[in-house]
Amino acid sequence: MDDIARERANSKLNTVEITNLLFGGEFIVQRMGEIRGMITSDPALQMRGYEFLDREDKYDRSVKLSTYLLKTKLSELGINHYLEKVQFFRESLGTVPPFDFTERIFYNTVNGQGTQEQKDKWLPLAGSGKILTCYAQTELGHGTFVRGLETTATYDSTTQEFIIHSPTLTSTKWWSGCLGIAATHGIVVARLITNGEDKGTHNFIVQLRSMENHEPLKGVIIGDIGPKFGFVEKDNGYARFDHFRIPRDNLLMRFARVDPDGTYTRRLSSKLGYGSMVQLRAFITFNTFEALARGTTIAIRYSVVRRQTQNRPGALETQLLDYTNQQFILIPLLATTYALYFVARRIIALLGETQAQLEQDNLTLLPEMHASSAGLKAVSTTAVSQGIEACRIACGGHGYSQSSGFPELYSNISASMTYEGDNNILLLQTARYLLKMVNELSHNPNHPLSDNVKYLTDNNCIHRPYSLIFTSSQQQLSLYRGMVRASVHRAHARVLDGEKRGLDTFDAWNQAAPELIQCAEAHTYYVIAKSFIESLEMSGVTNMCFENQRIMKKLSDIFSLHYMLQKSGVFIESGVIHGSDLVELREVLVSLFAEIRTEAVSLVDAFNYPDFVLRSVLGRKDGDVYRAMWDWVQDNPRNKHPDGVHPVYHKYVKQLLASKL
Amino acid sequence: MDDIARERANSKLNTVEITNLLFGGEFIVQRMGEIRGMITSDPALQMRGYEFLDREDKYDRSVKLSTYLLKTKLSELGINHYLEKVQFFRESLGTVPPFDFTERIFYNTVNGQGTQEQKDKWLPLAGSGKILTCYAQTELGHGTFVRGLETTATYDSTTQEFIIHSPTLTSTKWWSGCLGIAATHGIVVARLITNGEDKGTHNFIVQLRSMENHEPLKGVIIGDIGPKFGFVEKDNGYARFDHFRIPRDNLLMRFARVDPDGTYTRRLSSKLGYGSMVQLRAFITFNTFEALARGTTIAIRYSVVRRQTQNRPGALETQLLDYTNQQFILIPLLATTYALYFVARRIIALLGETQAQLEQDNLTLLPEMHASSAGLKAVSTTAVSQGIEACRIACGGHGYSQSSGFPELYSNISASMTYEGDNNILLLQTARYLLKMVNELSHNPNHPLSDNVKYLTDNNCIHRPYSLIFTSSQQQLSLYRGMVRASVHRAHARVLDGEKRGLDTFDAWNQAAPELIQCAEAHTYYVIAKSFIESLEMSGVTNMCFENQRIMKKLSDIFSLHYMLQKSGVFIESGVIHGSDLVELREVLVSLFAEIRTEAVSLVDAFNYPDFVLRSVLGRKDGDVYRAMWDWVQDNPRNKHPDGVHPVYHKYVKQLLASKL
Repeated sequence: MDDIARERANSKLNTVEITNLLFGGEFIVQRMGEIRGMITSDPALQMRGYEFLDREDKYDRSVKLSTYLLKTKLSELGINHYLEKVQFFRESLGTVPPFDFTERIFYNTVNGQGTQEQKDKWLPLAGSGKILTCYAQTELGHGTFVRGLETTATYDSTTQEFIIHSPTLTSTKWWSGCLGIAATHGIVVARLITNGEDKGTHNFIVQLRSMENHEPLKGVIIGDIGPKFGFVEKDNGYARFDHFRIPRDNLLMRFARVDPDGTYTRRLSSKLGYGSMVQLRAFITFNTFEALARGTTIAIRYSVVRRQTQNRPGALETQLLDYTNQQFILIPLLATTYALYFVARRIIALLGETQAQLEQDNLTLLPEMHASSAGLKAVSTTAVSQGIEACRIACGGHGYSQSSGFPELYSNISASMTYEGDNNILLLQTARYLLKMVNELSHNPNHPLSDNVKYLTDNNCIHRPYSLIFTSSQQQLSLYRGMVRASVHRAHARVLDGEKRGLDTFDAWNQAAPELIQCAEAHTYYVIAKSFIESLEMSGVTNMCFENQRIMKKLSDIFSLHYMLQKSGVFIESGVIHGSDLVELREVLVSLFAEIRTEAVSLVDAFNYPDFVLRSVLGRKDGDVYRAMWDWVQDNPRNKHPDGVHPVYHKYVKQLLASKL
Repeated sequence: MDDIARERANSKLNTVEITNLLFGGEFIVQRMGEIRGMITSDPALQMRGYEFLDREDKYDRSVKLSTYLLKTKLSELGINHYLEKVQFFRESLGTVPPFDFTERIFYNTVNGQGTQEQKDKWLPLAGSGKILTCYAQTELGHGTFVRGLETTATYDSTTQEFIIHSPTLTSTKWWSGCLGIAATHGIVVARLITNGEDKGTHNFIVQLRSMENHEPLKGVIIGDIGPKFGFVEKDNGYARFDHFRIPRDNLLMRFARVDPDGTYTRRLSSKLGYGSMVQLRAFITFNTFEALARGTTIAIRYSVVRRQTQNRPGALETQLLDYTNQQFILIPLLATTYALYFVARRIIALLGETQAQLEQDNLTLLPEMHASSAGLKAVSTTAVSQGIEACRIACGGHGYSQSSGFPELYSNISASMTYEGDNNILLLQTARYLLKMVNELSHNPNHPLSDNVKYLTDNNCIHRPYSLIFTSSQQQLSLYRGMVRASVHRAHARVLDGEKRGLDTFDAWNQAAPELIQCAEAHTYYVIAKSFIESLEMSGVTNMCFENQRIMKKLSDIFSLHYMLQKSGVFIESGVIHGSDLVELREVLVSLFAEIRTEAVSLVDAFNYPDFVLRSVLGRKDGDVYRAMWDWVQDNPRNKHPDGVHPVYHKYVKQLLASKL
């Protein structure tokens, strides 16, 4: 039996049970399989040779296939459900769709911020692909600080039009996906100016290209911003507007309206518009789960197939995954993958409640939702980007080849550290929420606290337990609560100290950034560890076989304890463990790794990625990686020149070798 | 005055002095400038539009230019010195040369392991480019573990030839640079078999392609292994051999010879061949300095130009570099850049002594050199790869564009974590050396120790100083010594403990990997911090103006203290600081950042990279980044289609928009 087959034979897990847990039940998993069957059975959707295409060929391919899918395939196959469309697009294209279809930020914005009239007009067009859309907010000189945007939309009551204009170079819209080539319409975020008054940024629907011939409309200058680290072929674009006129009712008017005479009325708190933002961040956390699931699948499968160094005379070389240092990299990442799954489910559930409230113009849940989704977005995208890179490096040289799938996986996910809010700034927002709670409590000790910050009033967590049992989930949570509580108070004290020293509000806050970011990160790791531990008690998990539950508990321990070891200084500084505890902490972790080691392949099999989705020669389910690498390079156009001689020889090399130097 | 000009006006540093220090004196710096002048004045060597080329066009360009440089340019310009050639190639090509010229591993191997006869025959050919060479060691299934290589070289005394053969798929040579397309000859590492005995791996010179028509010779199957994360166009290749015959004297025979009758004689310790390996690792450390110098130049210049968030009414938005969290990322990396410079100089000096010894068949210095170069290679490549990525992310969305230079900079440098030895394995080699010293001392307390490990017998460093002064260099070194010493003893105890529990040698070592890697990393950071601090006393630095020396000391403090904060758990566990010291440690660092903040631009200006070498719109010396981004995208072929309509519209999109869905 070959190595990877033996791993599966030795596993005691019920992989199917776990897959059903992760993807929402037997029925959905079966349907996912059907959709994958439709893709693999369609000759038009084969990915072979994809990695050898250059930017333009990749783009041409994805537009061609998307058109094919939208026009014929979806209806023909009866794929109507939104999530099924998303899966079908992602897995058949093998890249982010060229049209704003699965992202549909345009759609969500109109839906969340448009009037009923505007929804009736635009949503059917945007949802069906009869117009191609984008969302243009960021400008060349302005990103995270939305109030700093320069593009203007000046109302002209004589014609009842808004005049969209880019007054400066730095006001050029930049980065918007689909804007470069495809989009016919976009949401443009611009400063609304009426009757000479600047009312701040608002959202406008702007037609960009002619529906007749796709040429940019007069007064609109559009282009593609060029190749990027990832999403290479995607047409992220720029746009400049030269006094470009749009109808008055292209302003999204749910929160504010402009009357024909130019009178401006704010109707509702624009905070109600935050729904789509927190929604994006919540789903990003789920995306990071999927990305790390791919990364760990590739790295762990390869690590049982790859053997290195004969450590005992006459024995085979050792499987990579039998090296403790390899386990120390990959097994905490495997635990993190599961941790992110459970917390993503939670945040998406909380999102549902929040949005239901927002529909009722109710903002109660928004602050907690905002703080949690900001911290989770920052922590999960950073942890997963670094984790996928660690997986790649753990695969040695072959991880560096594009045949491994890692270069594309990493360069795509790493964008998530920046988009939808810079991670440092998001953590500072979470910190602001935490310090606000501390202030509230200082005024009113009975101030109501959401469950995630109850540690601020919990006095049972501030000292090291007399007998420390690292594998006790309850003790883990207690240690985390004590650590986070102390971190939040350190940050608070640091800000107060700055103010005492005469710094103004900004300087006092700014010089405390290290403590603020640290406490926000610590809080977020606590939220993740807590949701993992609490999920172990929920039916989805308790319904599973004993062995599955036992391993889930071990993964939860590894997640909690690995971060504790990484940040041991913070835990010690907070008084919840001592330096002398670390020897035992490392021993506990190493023994936990050994227990997970034997189940590692099953735990990634449960992620249920077929080879055609992973597109990694190293992550092949059958473990036949070297044959796969050999086959892959045979598609390399460089290896198809006659007589095995590359054109550069005749053009340049021949004369060089012939020349007298 | 614009932002970046104001930064320079406010700096008190003598930048020229620092540049001369870094690059070896006024004369060399001037010559570097002349060479740059020759490149910029040659229309054939312009890089404009380079980032928009696909893989084949980039390769064609670099082969074309290399041929041009080798055939005419170098002699015409009188560039003969090796280092001048290296600079000229790197800066004019903007990528790694397509021929094994600046790497010249083939050359160094023949030089180090060939007989005088062999050197006389091959070095002139390889050095002049009359043959194009590569070095083929790694196989599809075998990397770091050289003894596991499968390729065979079986001696046939009847014809006095070696028969090179690839017995399995996994024995296929893989990854070798220049092997895919260009190389005519290579060093092939293969198991020498003579008279039926396997004598282990040896180096053979093998002709791969015909000198007449460049076709692969019969019995040699060659190809390109396809696109990679970085070095996209480089022709890393594979080779399989089918009973391919080469003359007996193509075996490099300095260390071992095979007589015509097949008699095998080992002549000298093959350890003498390690010279070229440690040489490569030593120079990698210098390369990491140069890479991080580029990364910090780009990120710091952009961070004074980019403004974000209006933090005070009526004020301008704040420069990124004025945010403490931005300083916390970039300023320690700036300190690391200088730290790596000083330690690289040291290791290269030690290398000189070691190689002089090896020439005399003397191995005394080799173990220390091997341990230091292994640890430094691992620590520097990891720190710099992560550091450049941190610089990219600190530049927000624009860092993600290929116009920033970061994607190429990162994807290229990150390969260094794997090549020339996997970093974890190298750290374990350093740990093996450290534990060996502990064992020696247990047998003989007076065992001679190299300066870098004297802490093992230093009892003055094991407790926290009564009055702790973080900015005292001597105290920093004492804290590090105590921390490393304790780490080494923890690792040693962990291995012994495993053996006590009945584990065999490998298992006992393997389960201690976390402690072993930790102590090797700690030791290496100590070596770097020590060399930085000691360099402050050396003439190169003490000759500089007071302000330069003052700032160098601050940078040294930041390097020592930042690692202390990152690894505070280890320092606390080792008893040299307490958890309660961390508040002050953070305060000290934040105030040091504020002092470096005002000199940051000058400190990167001192790295002396002109815009055409950096090739980064964000790193421009004049700070005019937005104009540069706009100009850059105007070269984008995607933006040059007639009427601004991309071909995909006519091919696909038109029908999609027209269709009834």
